[in-house]
Amino acid sequence: MFKDATLVEVEDAMHRSCNAFKLFQKTSLSTRAALMRTIAKEIEALGDRLIEIAMRETHLPEGRLKNERARTMHQLVSYAAACERGDWLNVSICTSSPDRVPPRPDIRKTMTPLGPVVVFGSSNFPFAYSTAGGDTACALAAGCSVVVKAHPAHPETSECVAQAVARALEIHHLPKDVFIHLHGASFSVGEALVKDPHTQAVGFTGSYSGGMALFNWAQQRKQPIPVFAEMGSVNPVFLFNQQLSADVDAIAQQYADSITLGVGQFCTNPGIIIGLDTPALHRFKEQLAMRMNAIPEGKMLHDGIAKAYEQRASRAMTQKGITVLTENSRKPTAKNCTPLLLSVTASNFLENTILQEEVFGPASLIVVCNDATEMKRVAASLDGQLTSTVIATAAELKEQGELLSIIQQKCGRIIFNGVPTGVEVCQAMQHGGPFPATTDSRFTSVGPDGIRRFARPIAFQNFPDELLPDELKAANPLNVNRTIE
Amino acid sequence: MFKDATLVEVEDAMHRSCNAFKLFQKTSLSTRAALMRTIAKEIEALGDRLIEIAMRETHLPEGRLKNERARTMHQLVSYAAACERGDWLNVSICTSSPDRVPPRPDIRKTMTPLGPVVVFGSSNFPFAYSTAGGDTACALAAGCSVVVKAHPAHPETSECVAQAVARALEIHHLPKDVFIHLHGASFSVGEALVKDPHTQAVGFTGSYSGGMALFNWAQQRKQPIPVFAEMGSVNPVFLFNQQLSADVDAIAQQYADSITLGVGQFCTNPGIIIGLDTPALHRFKEQLAMRMNAIPEGKMLHDGIAKAYEQRASRAMTQKGITVLTENSRKPTAKNCTPLLLSVTASNFLENTILQEEVFGPASLIVVCNDATEMKRVAASLDGQLTSTVIATAAELKEQGELLSIIQQKCGRIIFNGVPTGVEVCQAMQHGGPFPATTDSRFTSVGPDGIRRFARPIAFQNFPDELLPDELKAANPLNVNRTIE
Repeated sequence: MFKDATLVEVEDAMHRSCNAFKLFQKTSLSTRAALMRTIAKEIEALGDRLIEIAMRETHLPEGRLKNERARTMHQLVSYAAACERGDWLNVSICTSSPDRVPPRPDIRKTMTPLGPVVVFGSSNFPFAYSTAGGDTACALAAGCSVVVKAHPAHPETSECVAQAVARALEIHHLPKDVFIHLHGASFSVGEALVKDPHTQAVGFTGSYSGGMALFNWAQQRKQPIPVFAEMGSVNPVFLFNQQLSADVDAIAQQYADSITLGVGQFCTNPGIIIGLDTPALHRFKEQLAMRMNAIPEGKMLHDGIAKAYEQRASRAMTQKGITVLTENSRKPTAKNCTPLLLSVTASNFLENTILQEEVFGPASLIVVCNDATEMKRVAASLDGQLTSTVIATAAELKEQGELLSIIQQKCGRIIFNGVPTGVEVCQAMQHGGPFPATTDSRFTSVGPDGIRRFARPIAFQNFPDELLPDELKAANPLNVNRTIE
Repeated sequence: MFKDATLVEVEDAMHRSCNAFKLFQKTSLSTRAALMRTIAKEIEALGDRLIEIAMRETHLPEGRLKNERARTMHQLVSYAAACERGDWLNVSICTSSPDRVPPRPDIRKTMTPLGPVVVFGSSNFPFAYSTAGGDTACALAAGCSVVVKAHPAHPETSECVAQAVARALEIHHLPKDVFIHLHGASFSVGEALVKDPHTQAVGFTGSYSGGMALFNWAQQRKQPIPVFAEMGSVNPVFLFNQQLSADVDAIAQQYADSITLGVGQFCTNPGIIIGLDTPALHRFKEQLAMRMNAIPEGKMLHDGIAKAYEQRASRAMTQKGITVLTENSRKPTAKNCTPLLLSVTASNFLENTILQEEVFGPASLIVVCNDATEMKRVAASLDGQLTSTVIATAAELKEQGELLSIIQQKCGRIIFNGVPTGVEVCQAMQHGGPFPATTDSRFTSVGPDGIRRFARPIAFQNFPDELLPDELKAANPLNVNRTIE
């Protein structure tokens, strides 16, 4: 139904995007913000048709998709506000000291957009991390043109949203090529987009193998470019006895819900739960398994993901020392994506890196430690993560200073007594973490600080006031926060 | 005199650095700031001995070295102040809304250090971008441990400064391995340092080939890491007629001084001067050549650099359409590093990418354009740069909106009516630019914002106040600027 872009079409798209960028980079912050707000409105105006198409293409339920649409609009509108507020410009001004020896010049620093950005639609967020999702919103706010490659699992949804963006550009009399939408089920389209010399940055949410392919292509270019790939995370959860005992059944229910939320298809899904060998943990295992058994099988986003879930689940189940806690009769298959809970001792876990690999879907592995020392060894063995969670009383956590340091080194967000799923879209959010969770831990892909991914600092020395960008002018006409030295 | 570290010593150094990091990352901002101030004092306490050693090793004159020492101390002291002020932490807080559906958690974001940083001493800044220079100061401020590889051209200078840092660590009762100093004339030491799994970031100032070797090693690791390599720049200068005519002799003198400052061994040296074919440009060429002829030959940092200057200069002189404007009898040689001024038409320049390559030393190339359109073509053909300079009246610059956009896309700092040499150490400085000027245009290596290179954001969700880092606590005991939502 939707044909892959040819290599000639990719080249043409990037060329047009580059030309559109030349104009779009000069737009005011308020123009960009207005565009983003109109995109949100145009997405809303697509109404039920968009939800119906997305339901058909992704198997996600109506309620979830409506929530995700609302989240997508909130991203556009709140990043628009942040774009205008201008904190992301990190403006600083050092005024001149002509009497100093040597005289100090007037230097003013702001941000300038990187250039055309390529965004890869993600399968698990057909709205919020696809066509007009977080990466696109941030890139537009920064003043970059955007070329989106639709995710092949929901091309019609993507096409529909792309038309909404096109209408918004038209309403604001902006060049249509500020946003270009392409299809590409084949790897070669992605490869050509990343390797095109006009491309200046890449946004991606998906698998480790997909993200690393993009990253390696980008680093091997004549001009290497930044790749913001969010790849995978098992989001470890550390359980401590006092807090767990106090509320074990409720915590089990909370985790049954978190593990199976959206058929486990969230990057913040809790995939590894690390506890101490106590009666409370035994009850937690039992209760969590029972509650997961009660959750019906779900339909995953597409056949490829369902098949991968079956394969990864089977592989995990047959590793040395693994106990299957959920009902054996409900073993996950590609057709019946049932929840899966496994358990293993810390010593078996530490010996086998396969058990650290993400089983993308409604699955989790409980790692049973003999003591806090073993728990620290497990923590130290983990790869970089998006999140880590600690279930503990404040007193218990206070005793675990060393563990907390280890966790802090390994993740982008630490949650105290909660679940990792549910990523709040706000200024203080950090969604990103050390490799291999992402390819660049220094930036976030959720929240308005994500705008900074697509811009770089530039300083103006001794410039005439009238030729400075507005945010640097003496009168501060945009009224942005500025550090003045 | 100084033996290269063996591969076993490198491995041991990185292991020790990693252990020291575990403790140092927890130090308060004021402890780090106090350490940095003491390092500055201990460098000062080295007195004339340090200057004498550096003069012998680098051939730089006493005055320059004393200035550079003062700059190095200023960096340490001003970055210490910035470290304590805490703006670099970019703290933001979203307080909880328990009544919202779903409830909004309390989320607080700050920065956490990356881990052990490897710093490569640079040859052209034996103090300010070497052992306890800008990269080391920023890494310590961020809470990272540092392993320095001394530049083989000034190992004794480096050793001397390293001892000052060691004394400062001792005074503050900090682990000695927070700062480790190694020698390594061979490439294999650098390679082992970058490839060591404990290394989490790399700082480098030097040649394109050196920087790219480090970058590629770092990106090909199992865990890729950030490399901040400042590699090379020809710092284009654009001359417009009205401003040039008004002051041609003074501008010529200013540029003769800038091109030959420190025997041309600055990364911001103006290597390409682009002007319009007018009588003012003719006089500028004549005056600049005359003034450069009057400047005596200098001794470069080491034989390798002097030899490279001779080779690059000879190669440039023999390119198609090149006119040598300085006296032919003073052709640069490795023994007599005389200033060199060349001229070429824009059409010849555009045909020959060799002419864009940096001739590291006191050399510059004047590119003569027929008109402003040709000037824009030259600008568009240039690689990424640290700086660009425009010599123009405000009215002339206003007419050149398109050229200014092109320039803005290509550099990190734009100077109006000045010279690119002289990099002010201040908050608003951007020293960094699009590839190949640096490997990461999103950060600066000069000014306190350079601290951000060595840290990444981390969010704490629903954390007990007493366990939060101080900058996130409700009472804001450090009194840092915070964005509260």
